[in-house]
Amino acid sequence: MLWFIVDAHAQQDQAKVLKSIYDEVLLRGQCYPMLDYLCNQIGGRLSGSPEAEKAVQYMYGRMQKYGFDTVYLQPVMVPKWVRGKKETAKIVKAATEFEVNICALGGSVATPESGLTAEVIEVRSINELKLLGEAKVKGKIIFFNRPMDPTLIQTGAAYGGAGDQRVNGPAEAAKLGAVGVVVRSLTLANDEHPHTGMTRYLDDVTKIPACAISTKDADLLNKVLSLKSAAPVKFFFKMSCASYPDVLSYNVVGEIRGTQLPNEVIIAGGHLDSWDNGQGAHDDGAGCVQSVEALRLIKTLGLRPKRTLRVVLFMNEENGLRGGLKYAESAGEEQQSGIKHIAAIESDAGGFTPRAFGVDDSASAVYLKKWENIFQPYGIEQIRRGGGGADIGPLKKYGTILIGYIPDSQRYFDYHHTSIDTFDKVNKRELELGAAAIASLLWLMSEEGVQ
Amino acid sequence: MLWFIVDAHAQQDQAKVLKSIYDEVLLRGQCYPMLDYLCNQIGGRLSGSPEAEKAVQYMYGRMQKYGFDTVYLQPVMVPKWVRGKKETAKIVKAATEFEVNICALGGSVATPESGLTAEVIEVRSINELKLLGEAKVKGKIIFFNRPMDPTLIQTGAAYGGAGDQRVNGPAEAAKLGAVGVVVRSLTLANDEHPHTGMTRYLDDVTKIPACAISTKDADLLNKVLSLKSAAPVKFFFKMSCASYPDVLSYNVVGEIRGTQLPNEVIIAGGHLDSWDNGQGAHDDGAGCVQSVEALRLIKTLGLRPKRTLRVVLFMNEENGLRGGLKYAESAGEEQQSGIKHIAAIESDAGGFTPRAFGVDDSASAVYLKKWENIFQPYGIEQIRRGGGGADIGPLKKYGTILIGYIPDSQRYFDYHHTSIDTFDKVNKRELELGAAAIASLLWLMSEEGVQ
Repeated sequence: MLWFIVDAHAQQDQAKVLKSIYDEVLLRGQCYPMLDYLCNQIGGRLSGSPEAEKAVQYMYGRMQKYGFDTVYLQPVMVPKWVRGKKETAKIVKAATEFEVNICALGGSVATPESGLTAEVIEVRSINELKLLGEAKVKGKIIFFNRPMDPTLIQTGAAYGGAGDQRVNGPAEAAKLGAVGVVVRSLTLANDEHPHTGMTRYLDDVTKIPACAISTKDADLLNKVLSLKSAAPVKFFFKMSCASYPDVLSYNVVGEIRGTQLPNEVIIAGGHLDSWDNGQGAHDDGAGCVQSVEALRLIKTLGLRPKRTLRVVLFMNEENGLRGGLKYAESAGEEQQSGIKHIAAIESDAGGFTPRAFGVDDSASAVYLKKWENIFQPYGIEQIRRGGGGADIGPLKKYGTILIGYIPDSQRYFDYHHTSIDTFDKVNKRELELGAAAIASLLWLMSEEGVQ
Repeated sequence: MLWFIVDAHAQQDQAKVLKSIYDEVLLRGQCYPMLDYLCNQIGGRLSGSPEAEKAVQYMYGRMQKYGFDTVYLQPVMVPKWVRGKKETAKIVKAATEFEVNICALGGSVATPESGLTAEVIEVRSINELKLLGEAKVKGKIIFFNRPMDPTLIQTGAAYGGAGDQRVNGPAEAAKLGAVGVVVRSLTLANDEHPHTGMTRYLDDVTKIPACAISTKDADLLNKVLSLKSAAPVKFFFKMSCASYPDVLSYNVVGEIRGTQLPNEVIIAGGHLDSWDNGQGAHDDGAGCVQSVEALRLIKTLGLRPKRTLRVVLFMNEENGLRGGLKYAESAGEEQQSGIKHIAAIESDAGGFTPRAFGVDDSASAVYLKKWENIFQPYGIEQIRRGGGGADIGPLKKYGTILIGYIPDSQRYFDYHHTSIDTFDKVNKRELELGAAAIASLLWLMSEEGVQ
């Protein structure tokens, strides 16, 4: 009974801390102007680009200005891929031509300088492609046109269910002698914006040029292909993208040292790189500024965490994950010196209104669930099993509890990897509420551990 | 134990019905194109305007096309107020002038044709105004500048906390001899858009012209007023708005008759009128098309509700509530014939991502809460005490359970009553998920009652 009373008091005290964190961000938040700068002054930040380096320096400067105990750059070699000139494409049937909107998939090779034309064949899956076999695929452009499933409520699940076409489709098509690949953009929106994203070539398979086509134009191509007439349907596209040798870049790290258990580290982070075609506002400028803001909130409120809190801005999530791997490598080295990463929060699902935290470990999910009631007034309605994230994933081998910050997912894939992932799509309060949620969970875990 | 098993089976069956409703709306939803028409083909629909009448005819036609059992127009006399020419305004201090963005408050009288100029005084509340007293207020323009409280997580609460300035401020200022009123726009955004909305004159008090000023310009006016220099700060504004005699309009009603308890009626609705300056997309085109879609979903899936389901599109919520009052009057007459309104759902908080239902009756809130678990996968995470709505409010006297559909509130007041409350601000899936949530709750209540 005494235990219960103490616990209720502790919860009440923590509820007051949360209130102070939320008040601070809603009254004097810094993350929205920080994102404004990242998007409107710097812009798209593809690994190895001048913009990515500007972003590294800018965020390093922010953390220094906020007076974190330690701020440093962690060197990491990253791939460099450049899109080149704006891509062009058209559907050709007999004398009729339709211009369509495409963009090169990340990592794609270029077409010949004058472009590439070939007959196009539509498939809905890699399996369907394999059933066609080499005889029918050889010399053709393969059009992967399986839409994301709109009936899945969490749009991330719909993305996961269609993503293999983009990631593995080009390599699989090349195995059967295809000369190019067009992939339906991974979005639930029906519009004119092509969505880029990484494709994965295989070392021993010819690299063929691969692009994404907007969903409206994918529907058009599908329609043209369904017309009954003898003339074959051809697809033309021209891309000048190219890969270059790896270049030096950095993860950006800042920390507030723990007062009682400094060797227990809890991190929050997002990825600082983005695709080049937009501003990387939701993906993942939002996660970066939220993570930095989370530590700033704790610092500025004079909260002294028991455990060490660290923000990590990962480089190269989009096309290599080198930053995540490098950081995990250094975490392994720290582990040798008795410094343990007990938990990691990743924010890489957009700057939308908060909904939940997902915890990848059952026992910890149960332990953290006790805080649901103090989060609920702030729109975090669930602390549940699930979650994690690409950049923090490699920490799993050190026993780190991986936690995903989960904002509402409905609008995310409208903007993801497109030219319209821009600052104006982010709502100030939604962004701020996310930063406060991350700060609050960091604080609670620093006070009471993770299990 | 047997009871438990039966109940679990029933829940499982209902979960299947919900899945079919959500699949239908996400695959073949009609509400998004319906809203497109309402916004882009018709536009703002202020009571008594030609647009409001077009909207009545259009929605009536939609319901007929969807084959509801009964569709009818319910006549109601509504006030007619017309904004007139675009308003102009400026801050004047000595030789310096700043043009600012204003709009007339709904119901306001016009300024003199050549405009109105007077010294302006800032207050933060009606109480502060009263403390100034007649000597200081007489002949002045009163500037109400208390912002909405950003630390309130539910933006509706922040709106409620600042709204008295707009609703009662002009009448209170007039009592003390003020000649005009400027109200800070009711929004948490800091931008250039003025937000209109109703103001309430008193019969025995002079009607003085009243406008809303954008938050950016409110800050500017505040700044100019704080400058230390002898010249008084004057405000000039020119508005040509006017009220006209009441005109005939309609609520639009459609129903699917219950198979077992047809005399128990459950309604869902929103208001068809909107302010004139935007398209009334979130406020409340969204609620209208969601309510119609809810019945269409039930109809098209061949579901046969035990109780009667009715959609009511109320006219004149914004500046009179005549439609809500008229409908309640007819519900009272129905009650005389043994037809009882057991529950009413109102959707008038925007077409944003679903979060909750609020139930105004404690016992029913507990009863409906049992469905939380089947709603949770669809983003409705709470069925809780609270809610209701302006148009369904007058039904309370008949013992009707009042339920508010509660979408996420963060973005709502960015658009509310402005020129940017337009179709493009509504996300297709978020709108559809709301329609399915309303259809699902209508269905469950029609099957299992409300207490």
